[in-house]
Amino acid sequence: MAQQHLDPPTGSAAVTAHRAAPAPLHEGGAPVGDVLADYLRAQATEFLRSLRQHRETGAAANGTGGSGDAARSLRRSARRISGSLHTFRPLLEADWSEGMRPELAWLSGTLAREHAYAARLERLLGALNRLSGPTALPAQTGRAAAAPITPKGNLTVGAAKAGALLDRQLTLARTRAHSAALQALGSSRFHAVADSVAVLASEVPLTPAAARTDLRPLAAAARDRLTDAVTGLPLVTAGHPYNAEALVHGLSADTAPQPQDAPWHQVRLLLRLHRYAREVLHDGECPVDTRLLGAGRALNRHRDAAEAASAAATAARTPRIAPATAYALGVLHADQRHEVEAARFAFQRAWQKEAVRSGPGD
Amino acid sequence: MAQQHLDPPTGSAAVTAHRAAPAPLHEGGAPVGDVLADYLRAQATEFLRSLRQHRETGAAANGTGGSGDAARSLRRSARRISGSLHTFRPLLEADWSEGMRPELAWLSGTLAREHAYAARLERLLGALNRLSGPTALPAQTGRAAAAPITPKGNLTVGAAKAGALLDRQLTLARTRAHSAALQALGSSRFHAVADSVAVLASEVPLTPAAARTDLRPLAAAARDRLTDAVTGLPLVTAGHPYNAEALVHGLSADTAPQPQDAPWHQVRLLLRLHRYAREVLHDGECPVDTRLLGAGRALNRHRDAAEAASAAATAARTPRIAPATAYALGVLHADQRHEVEAARFAFQRAWQKEAVRSGPGD
Repeated sequence: MAQQHLDPPTGSAAVTAHRAAPAPLHEGGAPVGDVLADYLRAQATEFLRSLRQHRETGAAANGTGGSGDAARSLRRSARRISGSLHTFRPLLEADWSEGMRPELAWLSGTLAREHAYAARLERLLGALNRLSGPTALPAQTGRAAAAPITPKGNLTVGAAKAGALLDRQLTLARTRAHSAALQALGSSRFHAVADSVAVLASEVPLTPAAARTDLRPLAAAARDRLTDAVTGLPLVTAGHPYNAEALVHGLSADTAPQPQDAPWHQVRLLLRLHRYAREVLHDGECPVDTRLLGAGRALNRHRDAAEAASAAATAARTPRIAPATAYALGVLHADQRHEVEAARFAFQRAWQKEAVRSGPGD
Repeated sequence: MAQQHLDPPTGSAAVTAHRAAPAPLHEGGAPVGDVLADYLRAQATEFLRSLRQHRETGAAANGTGGSGDAARSLRRSARRISGSLHTFRPLLEADWSEGMRPELAWLSGTLAREHAYAARLERLLGALNRLSGPTALPAQTGRAAAAPITPKGNLTVGAAKAGALLDRQLTLARTRAHSAALQALGSSRFHAVADSVAVLASEVPLTPAAARTDLRPLAAAARDRLTDAVTGLPLVTAGHPYNAEALVHGLSADTAPQPQDAPWHQVRLLLRLHRYAREVLHDGECPVDTRLLGAGRALNRHRDAAEAASAAATAARTPRIAPATAYALGVLHADQRHEVEAARFAFQRAWQKEAVRSGPGD
């Protein structure tokens, strides 16, 4: 069945067809190298399809619509390829896979930035709206400065000015990220990545032993790395609502991201690797694990809120802003840090739910 | 047994002795007017004792130590007398009790202010310390401006300046409240209150029917007013951690206290009246109701945090402050509004606990 991918597929139908096929098994019933190869080929195919779509719709500068979807889909496959190369490293030619991973990380990082800035701005303007009550900032405009505002007092002006400042800063960052992404997609570095992925779509460079290697212990190791990292999280604290931990350094002098966030971000990445490993094993019929889904969503929210809080703090350091603007940014920063705390609470709740048994290796 | 109070008692020993005595009962076993009279006499005696103590230690301007204790004790008895006059109104001479209540409220309000400003400042400086991490503001000084500060960045300077500004504003307010309290205690208005309380310590002006009137339905009505008011609170929302309700108008233009707080403050007062009514009924052996205790503590915390948040917002409107100061005050405001939300959650948890049965009328 792997033969159908030797000719470059032309759309997602091929991917779907592949996914619906039963996974190849070793004589003992264990998923082996071929299962991984199938998964990687499918993801590589999806990557190439998204790339074509992105080229067709790519000139749009707003990162939404077809171009945005294609970029998201590109990132999605790039992450899955990269994650699988990592988890199932022993089955793949070392030089090739170790050379490819940083390039895929560079690519998905570059492509992610534009969307991240847009989402961050939307999150912050949404929060400003919520914090200002119904009249201060018009909801859903995304452009606080340009919208008609009827200030009734100092702090409402502050909220509007804070919104305008964030809009300016994050829109500029987004525009730069868009240019950087376009530049990246035109670079020889990118073409080298695309060539590697095209090779992957036809011929996965497995080691000779891969055909006899059970994938499950490697997937289990990915799961164990996740559970070990979760064990290191302050889950008892996180499970007590309103523990006020996330804002503990809310006024510290350090501009760097809060060190207390790092282990949570790390768990987010490990959860993702675990999820991809499950996809490889259950290829074509991966059951949805609502616990993992909930935990993953909480960690995404954690990351987004942490970055939004950081953006508000950064904006507050803009020279010559009005005190009312700075005040509003302070309220906003604290609000987002409480979102961070809320996300940790949500993760703790999701994680403590009894794990859904979803087959071998999980 | 009421006779022992006709001579003005000279210390708390008399109160203790009174409290340890069994409550007088109607022939049917119901607590009647005499029970109320005993309670009021005991509280009046305590009031007069605290007043004497306050006069002896009264010159201290810091509101702590002996003078502070005496003022607290004065307020404590004034609140209990006033509350009991309200709950058991039908048993008391109407003109007398209706004339006395506003005077007691004026007195305890005037005496409470100094302590409230001191506590508010302590709460806000404590929060600034917590938010700044261990090095930015020295803990427990209570004087952010005077303490040695080693700023490592803009926002730490902001926290220190915010602390200094709050210290200045709230210390000034406290000093003014102290003068106002001293002035009040020397006023003819106060002497009239003290005279009324002295009358109460010897002769409680009960109505003729009071000796046959069961106190329990009146106490039950106080309890029902509390439970009705609690029913009106958004407890379902409050029971969901991180509902972000308390900060909803965090940036609104209105400088007035948040309208969403009012029903909670009202429940706090009704809970207090219910507690005092229980004290009257169980005089001398009032069992501790941990549920009420927890709920009451949560509502005190709610009130304190709401007022601290408001003080931070007010300080942020000081003309010509630095943006970094305003930013720190914004973070502080949001932090205290989250304390408000946390207190609502704590109240909800305390309230949902199964009520401890603590005897008739409760």
